[in-house]
Amino acid sequence: MQLITIEDIRAAAERIAGTAVRTPLLPTNLGTPDRPLWVKPESLQPIGAFKIRGAHNAVARLSPEVRERGLVTYSSGNHAQAIAYAAKEFGVPATVVTPADTPRIKIDAARAHGAEVVLVPMAEREARAEAIALETGATLVPPFDHPDVIAGQGTAGLEIAEDMPDVELVLIPVSGGGLAGGIGTAVKALCPKAKVIGVEPALAGDAQAGFRAGAQVHWAPEDRLRTIADGLRSEPSKLTFAHLLRVLDDVVTVTEEEIVEAVRLLARRARLVVEPSGAVAVAAHLNRVEELPAGRTVAVVSGGNIDPARFAEILSS
Amino acid sequence: MQLITIEDIRAAAERIAGTAVRTPLLPTNLGTPDRPLWVKPESLQPIGAFKIRGAHNAVARLSPEVRERGLVTYSSGNHAQAIAYAAKEFGVPATVVTPADTPRIKIDAARAHGAEVVLVPMAEREARAEAIALETGATLVPPFDHPDVIAGQGTAGLEIAEDMPDVELVLIPVSGGGLAGGIGTAVKALCPKAKVIGVEPALAGDAQAGFRAGAQVHWAPEDRLRTIADGLRSEPSKLTFAHLLRVLDDVVTVTEEEIVEAVRLLARRARLVVEPSGAVAVAAHLNRVEELPAGRTVAVVSGGNIDPARFAEILSS
Repeated sequence: MQLITIEDIRAAAERIAGTAVRTPLLPTNLGTPDRPLWVKPESLQPIGAFKIRGAHNAVARLSPEVRERGLVTYSSGNHAQAIAYAAKEFGVPATVVTPADTPRIKIDAARAHGAEVVLVPMAEREARAEAIALETGATLVPPFDHPDVIAGQGTAGLEIAEDMPDVELVLIPVSGGGLAGGIGTAVKALCPKAKVIGVEPALAGDAQAGFRAGAQVHWAPEDRLRTIADGLRSEPSKLTFAHLLRVLDDVVTVTEEEIVEAVRLLARRARLVVEPSGAVAVAAHLNRVEELPAGRTVAVVSGGNIDPARFAEILSS
Repeated sequence: MQLITIEDIRAAAERIAGTAVRTPLLPTNLGTPDRPLWVKPESLQPIGAFKIRGAHNAVARLSPEVRERGLVTYSSGNHAQAIAYAAKEFGVPATVVTPADTPRIKIDAARAHGAEVVLVPMAEREARAEAIALETGATLVPPFDHPDVIAGQGTAGLEIAEDMPDVELVLIPVSGGGLAGGIGTAVKALCPKAKVIGVEPALAGDAQAGFRAGAQVHWAPEDRLRTIADGLRSEPSKLTFAHLLRVLDDVVTVTEEEIVEAVRLLARRARLVVEPSGAVAVAAHLNRVEELPAGRTVAVVSGGNIDPARFAEILSS
């Protein structure tokens, strides 16, 4: 299996310049003297999540003839928006197949970018997207199981390494594994002394189980569905899992209560609107001190697409 | 009267590098094809507002002997935090004199940085700060009425000009006038074709009245106190007003309802926690089309220190 390289990530960075925002590292007061914390706010991307990096890179890599036949994808929401956004930029049609329980804000946003949205039960989404690709000739751009997508997500890691060459710990949400695999590849290439640790909800803790066993462990979709972190209910593919094994030092998990508290603290202390999935790395920093090395820490805040009513409820509680 | 120059701003930029975040321009979906909108999110600064730029620049310019005698200031909140933060960085004591009705979140933050907080009626704050400076030998660093403070705030304008040399319109909140005077100086020097327009609440519309009359107009403090935008209740000094006359093309005002709606939209569409004062420039973009030139627009989002309960209430309404 061919894994992506730092050169793939550098090439992706050139492709996405002008589309993805080069997000800054924000110092926070959520750290301690021996564990100062910066956040990388990917919630500030045009679609509210890092997914624009991988989607744009993958779509830019297609030949114009192939691209014009359209794009299709399956996604819990943020990748769907990213494909819809990339399709609009390139002026081609897009269809997104989305689990029926995806937050309305994510579905509406994909529609607002002009994509056709097909709602299906979560277990059927990949098959339906593949069927649409076969029928229409559209290209299936998967949410993580593709080298161009992984390389695109890795550009966030390139930026971390450029902005803080002496970073000691990078914490990254893990679901399908594209973000952690991509960022980890960049950080390990450029800051080889830094530790890179994935974070996921304990209720969707399949990546930790697999990583610590050294071989992938599958959890039933209905189990992974339990977490509030709707963007972290996928499982890695063979390709992304191989990247995780290569670049991560560990995977830690956080509880639902810790995720909600991190959302609240990020609003109050960092003035960021963050969705539960986007807050897990900060939750780990605050609550898993015994499992994490000390030092200058960057937590990737992966997205900010949360229903306003739920967000208001979290802020008031 | 000596006004600041682009060289003063460039020198300030060197002083504040490493303390202030170099905030990106964030593209939004709040614009229209002929008026695309980017926001400059100063709410993401370490203290949650642009004030860190001017405060750090002014404190860095003091001689070590003077600085060690301590700092004192008066402020509606964000400048108080900025002085407290700068004092902590330089290891010197700070006292902040704050109106008694300042939001608790701002007062607590200044205390958290180790400053002594003195609460007084708004009309007495300047006199009390001056008295403390006389008694203790501390240096009074005013919130806007000082060239070093104005030059520091201007660094945000330098960044706008660097990141978008073809910007056509810059919208900036106006209260004491340091931010608008500083940013306007940078933008007019580097992008002479761009229009620069100040924005304030109609309930504290003294700067518009003065600007359009060509001479300062004074409103009673109790009138300026009516707006929800607690950071925009000051009036320009002679020094800042002279800057506004030189660099602004106009001042427009927005209603309280428009400010609240902009706070709500910035949370939902830009994933930013913004205080009412920070949202006025976006409110103008959305509601004052007839008074604003078209073109590529940057709205400065000046701060994000809003009481969580009030923010949750705005999001839910």
